[in-house]
Amino acid sequence: MNGFATFEDTDLAALRAICGAERVTARDDIGEDFLHDELGDVRGRPDARVRVLSTAEISAVLRHASARRLPVTVRGSGTGLVGGAVPVFGGILLDTSGMTRILELDEKNMTLTVEPGVLLMDVAKYVEERDFFYPPDPGEKTATIGGNISTNAGGMRAVKYGVTRDYVRALEVVLPSGEVLELGGKVAKNSSGYSLKDLIVGSEGTLAVVSKATLRLLPLPKFKISLLVPFKDLASAIETVPSVIRASSIPTAVEFMERDVILAAEKYQGRKFPDRSADAYLLLTFDGASQGEIDLATEAAAETCLAAGASDVFLSDTQERNEAIWSARGAFLEAIKASTTEMDECDVVVPRSRVAEFILFARSIQKKHGIRILSFGHAGDGNLHIYVLRDALGDEAWRAALSGAFDDLYGRARELGGQVSGEHGIGFAKKSYLGRSLPPEQIALMRAVKAAFDPLGILNPGKVVSGGPCRPSERNP
Amino acid sequence: MNGFATFEDTDLAALRAICGAERVTARDDIGEDFLHDELGDVRGRPDARVRVLSTAEISAVLRHASARRLPVTVRGSGTGLVGGAVPVFGGILLDTSGMTRILELDEKNMTLTVEPGVLLMDVAKYVEERDFFYPPDPGEKTATIGGNISTNAGGMRAVKYGVTRDYVRALEVVLPSGEVLELGGKVAKNSSGYSLKDLIVGSEGTLAVVSKATLRLLPLPKFKISLLVPFKDLASAIETVPSVIRASSIPTAVEFMERDVILAAEKYQGRKFPDRSADAYLLLTFDGASQGEIDLATEAAAETCLAAGASDVFLSDTQERNEAIWSARGAFLEAIKASTTEMDECDVVVPRSRVAEFILFARSIQKKHGIRILSFGHAGDGNLHIYVLRDALGDEAWRAALSGAFDDLYGRARELGGQVSGEHGIGFAKKSYLGRSLPPEQIALMRAVKAAFDPLGILNPGKVVSGGPCRPSERNP
Repeated sequence: MNGFATFEDTDLAALRAICGAERVTARDDIGEDFLHDELGDVRGRPDARVRVLSTAEISAVLRHASARRLPVTVRGSGTGLVGGAVPVFGGILLDTSGMTRILELDEKNMTLTVEPGVLLMDVAKYVEERDFFYPPDPGEKTATIGGNISTNAGGMRAVKYGVTRDYVRALEVVLPSGEVLELGGKVAKNSSGYSLKDLIVGSEGTLAVVSKATLRLLPLPKFKISLLVPFKDLASAIETVPSVIRASSIPTAVEFMERDVILAAEKYQGRKFPDRSADAYLLLTFDGASQGEIDLATEAAAETCLAAGASDVFLSDTQERNEAIWSARGAFLEAIKASTTEMDECDVVVPRSRVAEFILFARSIQKKHGIRILSFGHAGDGNLHIYVLRDALGDEAWRAALSGAFDDLYGRARELGGQVSGEHGIGFAKKSYLGRSLPPEQIALMRAVKAAFDPLGILNPGKVVSGGPCRPSERNP
Repeated sequence: MNGFATFEDTDLAALRAICGAERVTARDDIGEDFLHDELGDVRGRPDARVRVLSTAEISAVLRHASARRLPVTVRGSGTGLVGGAVPVFGGILLDTSGMTRILELDEKNMTLTVEPGVLLMDVAKYVEERDFFYPPDPGEKTATIGGNISTNAGGMRAVKYGVTRDYVRALEVVLPSGEVLELGGKVAKNSSGYSLKDLIVGSEGTLAVVSKATLRLLPLPKFKISLLVPFKDLASAIETVPSVIRASSIPTAVEFMERDVILAAEKYQGRKFPDRSADAYLLLTFDGASQGEIDLATEAAAETCLAAGASDVFLSDTQERNEAIWSARGAFLEAIKASTTEMDECDVVVPRSRVAEFILFARSIQKKHGIRILSFGHAGDGNLHIYVLRDALGDEAWRAALSGAFDDLYGRARELGGQVSGEHGIGFAKKSYLGRSLPPEQIALMRAVKAAFDPLGILNPGKVVSGGPCRPSERNP
């Protein structure tokens, strides 16, 4: 049907010859953890899980897969939220989580070269200990850098520093054919043919396998401060954001927090949030090379917020208070998850000027669909994380409510000039929304690009713009 | 041979029906200016020059060209240096220089939406008068923004702020078929399918025609200062750069200047450069939101430079001195051009740590090839502008010397981990060097991407990765 070969015992033997028997696990021996990602709804069982340790092994596995026409899905640490690393067509699960070497810190060119399996938190720790800074800062610190590159993850500091793509100087990638290419270089500018590197960033493992990445670093900002700003309601909080961003220096992060989400975090953490006075908060961070610089920035931001109706401005200048605020912020996702039986999420991005409107819309459809919807996110860059919660709904009611709510949310985002995903990607779960968000000609062009890289269609099939359905038997098996 | 149709009178009539007779000029009536770009060596005569004024007209012209299989080459203000806008296969010259409307300044989302023919200097003036900042700052201010996007131009501020691609939020593009697509949006993050926008930036008009661009703006930095730092020789100057960049805040610009180039500028401008004491200079600029911030940065930079052997540090804190330095810097290209009979340039980019080595290499091959080589450029980002000068050489000797020097320069750049072009692009003139710099598999992949966008190959044929030769009769006609 889909044109893939059936995985045979000879394939297992071939993979074992490449990587050694101990790093190849066959179908039924593969643990439950590897059949899904963090959100868990999309499932697929691979025929073999292969823990590669080098570019040469990735290349050999792909050469074999191409010759045999077997599907290959790359997986890092499996923290994705859209099923991007789930092998919905079976075949080979190419597990790069063992490729954890930090290969080179080049201090003069301010780059760090790493294997794809290095965790985001390990990149941060390594460079900060050496007075450098890797700005992308997605909430999930145990994601691999390969995963961050594949979804073009953004995180909290995007409003000032941009997203992962802005910090990828060079990639070593393996094409589905097994061919190894170096894209980009340790250079700050490049106009030498089409930027395949920028295309591969965000392509969710469907065009090539990233086997090495050279990241751009900045000098570590020495000074940092957070402001917690209470507002009477969410709309006033969020409507203040555009003027805060223009006030002086651009904040490093502008997060919004609602009372319900804070309460969930308090309960989950068993720890009080530093303020209870308001329905909504902005959490602002500023960083810089001098105390004077961030003093000036916080002063301007505080003035702007107070003029816009903030009831107070709390300077988070003690380690303790800072920790209390940011640990709550860090726990939002887990806290929301713990507050319900099941959930799904929508990480739309809308223009900064439309965030308030969109959040109020998300709240307003709760009653219509008979579900709870909670949200938090990056008010500064317009990327919202909106969670639809199942609570006590039965199977059918949940499916209907979720699908109705998602239709409304994605539809409204489109009307407001937004996009389906700000940083989690499309993967498997958001394909139909991407299909509705973009005109057919644009999807067709993306498919033609996919075919240019992967003419046999073996790389992460069924994802992003793939037309094929997944095997129904593999969904929620 | 190349599969293109011959341009007929009926094509002229069709184009006149689309744009009106007054905006369509036929073959022999097309002025000499439109047969080449700024460097002038690559030449081609279009069959028709069409001055389009809207997306709808671009679309209609491309639909006609597709139906008839006629080549189409886009041209902005013709300031390119690699023949990118020269119609080497004839056909239609799609002149977007009349599309000069600034369509929207969105203050909340900090974006500016413009037509492709708006000049870079007009973008800068418009936003700065309104307290915003568009960071990309290539030397050629009369380039169009469409041209800057097509080459992913970088300019002087790339070391701190990045390149054009980093400031393109959204593009409206017209595919060769005439289809109009919106790519990206007024959003700061986007992981919604392949980033075709980032692929089109830097594709030199070979994949699609940019008909509208939404640019990302920053708040205008209120304070700015330049430092002119004399060094005993070029190598000591350039070797100081990596530590200056790490010292405190990243400088906005780090330019290097050699005595010979400064002398050429003095002669060209009839105006003295503020200092004559040294063989080489670094010109550093810092900008920021407060005086304190840039004071701190300049102090750290001055200390670093003096420790590395700089003989002095001149603060350019008067308008007059600032103007004298920067107007000299701005005149380098014209001054070098005026100092010789003909020249060609190489805008390689190498890792920052290899700049000194590369510049010394460029000097060292002058004798071997019997030519003068002058250079200036962006020491901070590794993008060098190296000019090979003809002076009194005869035709044959010039061709041999130029080709020998270019072979050496591009070969050495490759060895140092560099790329063929930092910001001027590949166009027609640098195709063979791109072909030697990248492995055949990568060129093949770029060609497959080209075919995905432009299956008939009508858009800017003969450029970037096109395999076809240009018609010999059109080179230096």
